[in-house]
Amino acid sequence: MDVQQPYLVFLGDARDALAAKTGQGIVDWRPKAVVGQLRLPGCVANLGVADVTIEQAAEAGARTFLIGVVNPGGVLPDHWQGAIVEALGAGLDIASGLHTPLASVPAIARAAKQSGGQLLEVRRPVGPFRTATGRKRTGKRLLTVGTDCSVGKKYAALAIERELIRRGVAADYRASGQTGILIAGSGIPIDAVVSDFAAGAAEMLSPDNDPDHWDVVEGQGSLFHPSFAGVSLALLHGTQPDAIVVCHEPTRTTMRNVDAPIASISDVIDQTLALGRLTNPAVRCVGIALNTATLGSEAAKRAIEQTRRDFDLPVCDPMRYGVEALVDEMLV
Amino acid sequence: MDVQQPYLVFLGDARDALAAKTGQGIVDWRPKAVVGQLRLPGCVANLGVADVTIEQAAEAGARTFLIGVVNPGGVLPDHWQGAIVEALGAGLDIASGLHTPLASVPAIARAAKQSGGQLLEVRRPVGPFRTATGRKRTGKRLLTVGTDCSVGKKYAALAIERELIRRGVAADYRASGQTGILIAGSGIPIDAVVSDFAAGAAEMLSPDNDPDHWDVVEGQGSLFHPSFAGVSLALLHGTQPDAIVVCHEPTRTTMRNVDAPIASISDVIDQTLALGRLTNPAVRCVGIALNTATLGSEAAKRAIEQTRRDFDLPVCDPMRYGVEALVDEMLV
Repeated sequence: MDVQQPYLVFLGDARDALAAKTGQGIVDWRPKAVVGQLRLPGCVANLGVADVTIEQAAEAGARTFLIGVVNPGGVLPDHWQGAIVEALGAGLDIASGLHTPLASVPAIARAAKQSGGQLLEVRRPVGPFRTATGRKRTGKRLLTVGTDCSVGKKYAALAIERELIRRGVAADYRASGQTGILIAGSGIPIDAVVSDFAAGAAEMLSPDNDPDHWDVVEGQGSLFHPSFAGVSLALLHGTQPDAIVVCHEPTRTTMRNVDAPIASISDVIDQTLALGRLTNPAVRCVGIALNTATLGSEAAKRAIEQTRRDFDLPVCDPMRYGVEALVDEMLV
Repeated sequence: MDVQQPYLVFLGDARDALAAKTGQGIVDWRPKAVVGQLRLPGCVANLGVADVTIEQAAEAGARTFLIGVVNPGGVLPDHWQGAIVEALGAGLDIASGLHTPLASVPAIARAAKQSGGQLLEVRRPVGPFRTATGRKRTGKRLLTVGTDCSVGKKYAALAIERELIRRGVAADYRASGQTGILIAGSGIPIDAVVSDFAAGAAEMLSPDNDPDHWDVVEGQGSLFHPSFAGVSLALLHGTQPDAIVVCHEPTRTTMRNVDAPIASISDVIDQTLALGRLTNPAVRCVGIALNTATLGSEAAKRAIEQTRRDFDLPVCDPMRYGVEALVDEMLV
């Protein structure tokens, strides 16, 4: 799945900033990939980039009209169709992570046919895929794993990629979920791949590379989440990481959406290394990323310091304090 | 996926007995579900049941024309179409595990439309599925797991179901792969389910049941197979087994189709119990099923006796010597 950059980020009539999280992620992590934002009347989100018309965006070189906003239920509301049709007419592709397939809307399908523009559904994997081989690939890989879903695996990976590049290390963030794919402009939504091919898709996501190159792969779910552990394991085996970073949200007590306690950091380290050795016997844990967003500054620092003492590993909050210590350890 | 029984088993022009393995499995495990076999000129396989015409099969009450033979590449050869069309005309459904979708063959699609007969593709899961909840269900479950693919997990499960029923214990074999689905007449091909829903599909496969009822679930792959471990883990978590049986082929040294050593029985026991505890803390290993088909009688008995001593667990070859010791232990 390749989404051509740069983007015109469409925010529709987003009811709050959280609804525009995808758009915000793109602005945060790929600011050069954004020519501007398009907001409909009533939109309360603002990415802090230029408000542009579709015509201006096309003139500025935008290649893709990216739906950077979620709607309840993932439905495409009728009053967004006009902008999408206009964007197709201006020569742009459309990229969407919504549940409603773009091509299922007759006006959009018609406009795409006329313009030749692509309708990119980042929820839908683009095959063909094959089963995993387990063959060791060249180059290095880091995988972010978690004690639960939604604990910061995507942003930890993006922060590590950014820090590696800052240090002059060749690195690529590899997106395994739809928001990450829109940020990076490419990737594979692993959880939407048929399970027989999930590990094989993970192998395709981080192909052979130069010996010193790092792929920084966005993890999915948790080996301890009863709904998604199979996805997490397929991604672990297919990625065959040299290094893992364990992501954790220190105030969470139960797994998201299920009646199960959150996994402990030590269990996640032990189990990930035990299972990861199947495809990379040299896998090691290079640190812990704490998502301390819900804590005050003092409490966050205490949590980080305590975790560092408990595990004798580098501990960071990627969004608050960066990932230098993690990257120091992975490059040892 | 429900396939109506009884079956007319179609063997086409099977080149050898192995090509008719699916048909043989049905005759072995569900003899009452077979009204007869239909063989084309040149067929060298023989299931040892009556040769019948389609007309005779329909009169005898056959509901489904079941393709019980595999062809190289899973392709449906042109010269099988006539029999399929005739079977539809006689009021039968068609069930197939071939790669070629039945409905992609115009003559078959037309005949099905005319007759109202169903075209059942057991490779294709019939949703909708949901993500797993991890909620503990009522009733008991056994899952067969393996040191590799194709070590006898399906037949071990079928043998355990048969022995339970012989003892008057309420039990159902639950098929997780296409051959098992054709044998049982129902099931879910877990490896063909989108990975996000694989554990949820496994939950649907063995729903709430009476407290003393056993679901005997056919395992898939191996937690140590780099291509399929994610599927195996999703099935383990979704099944939430009370008991596992580890299946092993004692002469195999490498994993099927990949360059990896076969897993050890002890690693499979330890890892399956460690991971299985997430959704059933009481999971235990009730024995080992050895597939000794490649060994002579004396060597087979020695391998079973040695394994029994090594693990202090019941050890059986289900096909050769039955599964009484395993079932004794699961009912303790």
